[in-house]
Amino acid sequence: AYSTGVRRVTLIPGHGIGPEITVAVQKIFEAAKVPIEWDEVDVTAVRGPDGKFGIPQKAIDSVNTNKIGLKGPLMTPVGKGYRSLNLALRKEFDLYANVRPCKSLDGIKTLYDDVDVVTIRENTEGEYSGIEHEIVDGVVQSIKLITEEASKRVAEFAFQFATENNRKKVTAVHKANIMRMSDGLFLRCCRDVATKYPDIKFEERYLDTVCLNMVQDPSKFDVLVMPNLYGDIMSDMCSGLVGGLGLTPSGNIGKNGALFESVHGTAPSIAGHDKANPTALLLSGVMMLRHLQLYSFADKIESSCFKVLSEGRILTEDLGGNSKCSEYTDEIIRNLE
Amino acid sequence: AYSTGVRRVTLIPGHGIGPEITVAVQKIFEAAKVPIEWDEVDVTAVRGPDGKFGIPQKAIDSVNTNKIGLKGPLMTPVGKGYRSLNLALRKEFDLYANVRPCKSLDGIKTLYDDVDVVTIRENTEGEYSGIEHEIVDGVVQSIKLITEEASKRVAEFAFQFATENNRKKVTAVHKANIMRMSDGLFLRCCRDVATKYPDIKFEERYLDTVCLNMVQDPSKFDVLVMPNLYGDIMSDMCSGLVGGLGLTPSGNIGKNGALFESVHGTAPSIAGHDKANPTALLLSGVMMLRHLQLYSFADKIESSCFKVLSEGRILTEDLGGNSKCSEYTDEIIRNLE
Ligand SMILES: CC(C)[C@H](C(=O)O)[C@@H](O)C(=O)O
Ligand SMILES: CC(C)[C@H](C(=O)O)[C@@H](O)C(=O)O
Repeated sequence: AYSTGVRRVTLIPGHGIGPEITVAVQKIFEAAKVPIEWDEVDVTAVRGPDGKFGIPQKAIDSVNTNKIGLKGPLMTPVGKGYRSLNLALRKEFDLYANVRPCKSLDGIKTLYDDVDVVTIRENTEGEYSGIEHEIVDGVVQSIKLITEEASKRVAEFAFQFATENNRKKVTAVHKANIMRMSDGLFLRCCRDVATKYPDIKFEERYLDTVCLNMVQDPSKFDVLVMPNLYGDIMSDMCSGLVGGLGLTPSGNIGKNGALFESVHGTAPSIAGHDKANPTALLLSGVMMLRHLQLYSFADKIESSCFKVLSEGRILTEDLGGNSKCSEYTDEIIRNLE
Repeated sequence: AYSTGVRRVTLIPGHGIGPEITVAVQKIFEAAKVPIEWDEVDVTAVRGPDGKFGIPQKAIDSVNTNKIGLKGPLMTPVGKGYRSLNLALRKEFDLYANVRPCKSLDGIKTLYDDVDVVTIRENTEGEYSGIEHEIVDGVVQSIKLITEEASKRVAEFAFQFATENNRKKVTAVHKANIMRMSDGLFLRCCRDVATKYPDIKFEERYLDTVCLNMVQDPSKFDVLVMPNLYGDIMSDMCSGLVGGLGLTPSGNIGKNGALFESVHGTAPSIAGHDKANPTALLLSGVMMLRHLQLYSFADKIESSCFKVLSEGRILTEDLGGNSKCSEYTDEIIRNLE
C-alpha cells in the first residue's frame, strides 16, 4: 500500500528554528523527487473547552487522516494548564514506541567512534502517566504505571525491529531490583517475547549498569528496550555519544500512525538567521521514508547527508563550521548522486 | 568530639571479595596509625519474626552504638522475601544523603580527563519507596514518594557540602517538566535552600539534558543533587567516566550515623584469589576519615593510593596490571609518606 503513488504526509514545522529546518528538508525531498505531498499544519497550543491547552483540531485531523507525519521542535509555553505538546501528540495517537538510532558519524568527532545503538522507549505510560497527588501537605506521590499490554507491545516492537534491521541483540533495561512489581512486569513481558525470537540474543541489565557500561564501551550494546523515563535518559545520553540532538533522528510509532521528529529544542536565539542545523529533522525524515518503504529515496538522501558531514567543508556553526543552513542544504542536494 | 581518642567503627566486610579488600584497608589503616578500632560484624540476611529477611540485630546494634561504619559489598539472595541489604541499611539508619565523588585519576586512562563531580543523592524515598500494587491484573503502579522534609534536608546537605568543600556550583537534576508535582516539590526545596547560599551558584537541569551534557563535557558540572533514582543512575554514569565502581568511593550520611561503602559487586568469580581491587573501599574509608575529621590520616592514605595508581607499576588485574591485591596493598603502605 505504501509503495505506490504519492503519499500525503502531515508536516508540523513547529516553532523557533522549526520552520527553516523544515524548509531545508522539503527542498532536499523535492530535489530527490520523493513521492510525497506535504499537508502542513500548525501546532501551537490552543485552549480547549476544558480550559486546558492542547493540540489544534486541524492538526489532529490531519495526522488521523494521513497516519504519518514529520515534525520540528515545539515550544510549550510555561505555566499552569500547559502540558508538553510533544507528549500530547504521542498520547493522542497512541504512538507507543519511540525509536532513536544513534550511530557514530564520519566527520563528527566525539570521544567515541564505535557507537551503533538503537533505544526503543515505551512511549505512553511509566513515569509519564501524569498521575500525581499531594494529600498531605509536602508529601507528593507520583504514579509510575506499567501495564502488561503496553510492555508486551513495545517488547514485540523491539524484537520485530531487531529482526527487520538485522540486529543481533536486544537488551531490556530495568530496575526490577527496586521496582520489583512494575519493572518486574516489564521484564517478564520482554522475556516472554524474547522466546519467540530465538535468533536475537536477549539480555537484561540494570539501568545504572547500562549507564556505566555505555560511557565506557558503547559497542557492548545494540538494541535497547525500556520503560518511558529510562528511554528518555538513555536516548539523550546515546545521542550525546555521537554528537548531540542536532544529529540524531527520532520516530514515534503506533498501530495507526507514526510521527517522526527532531528532538532538539526550538533554539530561539538563532531562529530566523539561517544558522540552524537541519540534520536531525532530515534524518528523521529519512526514517520516515523507510517506514513508508521508500527505501531508495531514504538511502539516497541519507548517503548525501553523511557525505557532506564527512567531508566537513560545509557545516553549520553548531558543528564548528561557518556555513548557513541553506548552504548546507544546497550541498546535500548537489550530492544526491 | 571526633578528633580525640580512639574511635570505634563498625566494620562490615561483606561477601565475595568483601573480606579480602577489607583486610587490605585494615592493613593500610594500621600502617598509617589511624586511631580507630574496628568492631567487625557480619551482615548476612537473617529471617525475622515476620518471615522476611533482614539485617542481623548485632549489626544494627553496632552501627547504632558507633554511629559510623565501613562496609564491603553485600550479596542479597534472590527470591521472595529478600530485599537488598544495602538498601535496608540505608533505611534502617535513615542515611538520607548518598555522596559519591568522581574525579579523574592520574594513571587511570579513560576517555575523559577532566571529571570532578560529586553526586548527592536523596537516599530514603523517591522511586525507592517500595510501595507498589497491582489491583487489576497486568496493571502495576509504583509510587514515587517525594516529601518536603527529605528534599529540604538533602538540598541543605548538598549546599553545606559544597560550602565545606570549596565547590562553586550545585545543579539540581530533575524531570519537573513531567513529574510536575513531585520533582516540582524537590526543585522548589532546592531553590529555597539555594537562596541561603549566595556564594554557591545554583542551576536546574533536566535529567536527560544532564546525561547528554555529562558525556560530552563533564567539566560543566560540579556538585549535583537529585532524587533517589536519578542519583543511582548519575553516580554510576559518572563513575564510568573515571574508571568504574572499583575506583570510586561512596558515603551514606544521616543525622545520627554514616556508612561508607564500596558500591561494586561481590565479584564471586575472583573471590578468595587475592585478585580484587580494594581501591573503592579504601577511598570510602578515606571519606570516612574526613567525616571523622581525621584529615591528616585521610590525606596521607589518599596520596599514597593515588601515587601507586599513577605510577602504574603495581596494579590489580581489573586495571590492566598483574599484581595481587596484597601486593598493591603493600605498595600503598610503602608509600605512606
Ligand atoms: C520535551 C520532553 C517532554 C521530552 C520527554 O521528556 O520525553 C523530551 O525530553 C524527549 O525526549 O522527547
Ligand atoms: C544494589 C542496588 C540496590 C543499589 C541501588 O539501586 O541503589 C546500587 O545500585 C547502588 O547504587 O548502591
